[in-house]
Amino acid sequence: MPQISEKGRSMPSSPVRKLVPFAEAAKQRGTHIYQLNIGQPDIKTPKQAIDAVRQNDITILEYSHSAGNLTYREKLISHYNKLGMNLSIDDIIVSTGGSEALLFAMGSICDYGDEVIIPEPFYANYNGFATASGVTVKPITTSIDNNFALPSIAEFEKLITDKTKAILICNPGNPTGYLYTQEEMDQLAALVKKHDLFLVADEVYREFAYDGREHFSVLNQAGLKNHAIMIDSVSKRYSMCGARIGCMVSKNKEVVAAAMKFAQARLSPPTFAQIAAEAALDTPQSYFDDVIQEYIERRDILISSLKKIDGVEVANPGGAFYCVAQLPVDDTDEFAQWLLESFDFEGETIMVAPAAGFYSTPGMGKNQIRIAYVLEKDSLVKAVNILEKGLKAYLS
Amino acid sequence: MPQISEKGRSMPSSPVRKLVPFAEAAKQRGTHIYQLNIGQPDIKTPKQAIDAVRQNDITILEYSHSAGNLTYREKLISHYNKLGMNLSIDDIIVSTGGSEALLFAMGSICDYGDEVIIPEPFYANYNGFATASGVTVKPITTSIDNNFALPSIAEFEKLITDKTKAILICNPGNPTGYLYTQEEMDQLAALVKKHDLFLVADEVYREFAYDGREHFSVLNQAGLKNHAIMIDSVSKRYSMCGARIGCMVSKNKEVVAAAMKFAQARLSPPTFAQIAAEAALDTPQSYFDDVIQEYIERRDILISSLKKIDGVEVANPGGAFYCVAQLPVDDTDEFAQWLLESFDFEGETIMVAPAAGFYSTPGMGKNQIRIAYVLEKDSLVKAVNILEKGLKAYLS
Repeated sequence: MPQISEKGRSMPSSPVRKLVPFAEAAKQRGTHIYQLNIGQPDIKTPKQAIDAVRQNDITILEYSHSAGNLTYREKLISHYNKLGMNLSIDDIIVSTGGSEALLFAMGSICDYGDEVIIPEPFYANYNGFATASGVTVKPITTSIDNNFALPSIAEFEKLITDKTKAILICNPGNPTGYLYTQEEMDQLAALVKKHDLFLVADEVYREFAYDGREHFSVLNQAGLKNHAIMIDSVSKRYSMCGARIGCMVSKNKEVVAAAMKFAQARLSPPTFAQIAAEAALDTPQSYFDDVIQEYIERRDILISSLKKIDGVEVANPGGAFYCVAQLPVDDTDEFAQWLLESFDFEGETIMVAPAAGFYSTPGMGKNQIRIAYVLEKDSLVKAVNILEKGLKAYLS
Repeated sequence: MPQISEKGRSMPSSPVRKLVPFAEAAKQRGTHIYQLNIGQPDIKTPKQAIDAVRQNDITILEYSHSAGNLTYREKLISHYNKLGMNLSIDDIIVSTGGSEALLFAMGSICDYGDEVIIPEPFYANYNGFATASGVTVKPITTSIDNNFALPSIAEFEKLITDKTKAILICNPGNPTGYLYTQEEMDQLAALVKKHDLFLVADEVYREFAYDGREHFSVLNQAGLKNHAIMIDSVSKRYSMCGARIGCMVSKNKEVVAAAMKFAQARLSPPTFAQIAAEAALDTPQSYFDDVIQEYIERRDILISSLKKIDGVEVANPGGAFYCVAQLPVDDTDEFAQWLLESFDFEGETIMVAPAAGFYSTPGMGKNQIRIAYVLEKDSLVKAVNILEKGLKAYLS
C-alpha cells in the first residue's frame, strides 16, 4: 500500500477537530450547545450582496480573469484608496478567501525550509498554510498579561536567521483581538526594513476596531512599499464566510507577478462570489456602525462577565470578535471535551476552542481558551454562566 | 528590497501568457480573433444550475462543511455509484475546482523533492501545482504518430526511483484528447501495484468520450482501492468553469484524511457554486447527448480540415475537446505571435496555444499547437482556413 506524505501526516488539524464528535453526541442527547468555538458570525450578509447573485443573468458560467473580475478589482481599489492606500489595478489579486491569499503570499516569498516569524497565539490555520508551503513557523510568544501586545523588537531579532523571509501578523488578531498601535506598526516597519524582510499583515478584521481606536494598515506605513503584503477577505467584513473571496495586495511588483502565476495555475476565483463581493462594496456605513456597536456590546458584556468568575483571567480585545481567557484548569483540551461529554446546566452547555492549537510552541496555552463572541448578548451571558457552573463542577 | 522565492521565480506561466498583449493589440486594430487557445466552452450552462443560485434564500452566507455540503456530497456519490464506483460519503472531498483537488492530492502524497511521472504533453498547470507543492515532474514523452497513446510500461519503469510517488494521467487528455483503453488502464494498474505508487487520474473530461467508446475510470479498476485517486470538476461537464467546484475522490482512507486537513485549513469550498453544482447533477441526459454530438461534429470538421493543409499532421482525439496539430514551422511560439501581430485574413486571425508549454522536456513540442474546439463549426472552418492562409504567408 503506497504511503501518504510526511507533509500529509504533519498537517495540523483544527483546534476543535477532536471536539466535534463530542458535540455531535451532546446534540444527540438533546443538549443545546452555545457555539463559541468558531468565527462564523450570526450577522446577516448585506442584502445587496445576496440580491446581486439572485439577479445574475449568466448563461455561460465562464472563468473570470485569474486576478479577479476587472470591475470588482477597480471597485476594490477605489475602496482601499479611500483608506489612503494609493493602489493601482496591478497591486491586487482576488483570491479564493483570505486562505488562498496567504498561500499565494507564502509561495511567492518562501522556499522550502524558509522561516516566517509569527507572534503566538495566532490563527491556527497559519500552521496549515505553512506546512502546505514547506515553510517553518518561528513563533514569538505574547502574553495575556498585557493583552497579547507586540513583543519587544529584541525578541524578534533573536529569532531572525538567514532563512527568515517574513513576519506575519494578524491585525486585529485572531484569537487575541489585539489591535496594533501606530507605534507597534512603526517598530515592525523599522524591523523589516533593517533585516530586508516582508511584513505580511492579515487584516481581515480591519473594520472591527473598537473604542474609537484606529486600525493601522500595513499598506499605510510609509517607506514599506516593497516590504508590505496585505491579506484581506470579505468573510468577516460582510459576514460572507461562505463566499470564499479574499485578496492579496502589495505594491511590490515582483511579489504580485509571482503570486499571479500561482493565481493563473488555479485559473480564477469563484464567479458568483465575486458578484456578491462586488455588490457588497456598496454596503452603507450604517451596516458597519450597527454591527460594530453590536460587537462592542457583546465584548463588554462577555469580558465583564468572564472577569467575575473566580480564577479566570481575560485579555481585553481592541478589535475582531474573539477573546482569549485563561482558566483555572490544567488542560483546556480535556475541559472543553468534558463540557460537551459530561456536563450540562439545565440542558445546555458550551463549545469553546482550546487555545493550545493557536500556539506553535509545545505546551503553551494549555490553560487558555478562545471565545468567539458571535452570538447574541443574551446567549453570551448564558454561555458564561455555564462556563462558571462548569468550572465549579469540574474543579470540585 | 526583500527577494521573492525561487519557487515564485520558477512558477511556470500559462503557455499563452506571452500572446495576450499581442491579442489585445490585434483587437485594438479591429481584427477579429477566433480564440482556439483556451478550454472555455461556448456551451450554455444547464439552466437549473443557474436557476438554483438565482433562487437561493441565504441570509447569512456561512462556511460550508470543509468537505463540501453534505447534500451535495450525497448526490455526487449517488451520481458516481451509478457509474459503478461503489463510493461512500467519506471518500469525497469537494474542492475549489479540479485545481485545488490536484493540490490536495499532491500535498497528501508527496513531500518536497518527491517525483510524479506524467505522460507529456500534459495540462500545463500540472507544472504549476507541482512547483507550488515542491514536487518534481518526470515527463514521459508520447507521440503524435500514435495519437499520444500510453508509452510502454518499460519506459515508465526507467523513470521510477525511490522518490517516485505517483503516476498522473489526464483521461481523456488535455491537450491530446487521448482516451485510454481498458488495456492501458490495466497496464497502469499493474505498474502502480508492482511499485507501490499512487495512480492519480484527472477525469474532468470523462463525459466527452466519442465514437461510442467507453471511458474507464481509475475508480473502476479492480484491486486499485488504495492506489487510485480521482480528480474531477464541474467546469467542463456542465460548462461551469467559473463555479470553481471539483472534488478529490479516493478509497484510500489515509489519503482522504490527509487531504481533509488541507481542506480544513482553507475552511470550505464556495457556497453559491456548490448550490449550482448540486442542481447541475439533475441535468438531463439529453443535454449531454446534444453537447457530445456537437463536439463530435466539431472535431470531425476540425480534424478533416486540418488534414487537408499541406505539412500539417494532427492526432485524432477520442475525447475531450482539444487536438494537438504539428505544423511545418520551427517555433509555434513565434508563429502564434506572428498570427496575432502581423497577419490577418479579411480582418480575422486566430489565437492558438503553442504546445511547448504542455511539455516538460525542454525543446519538445516546438512545432506543435493545441487547438480547443470550443467554437461553432462555421467558426472552426474559418479558423482553419486562416491557419492555412497564415502558414502559406509565414512560410513564403
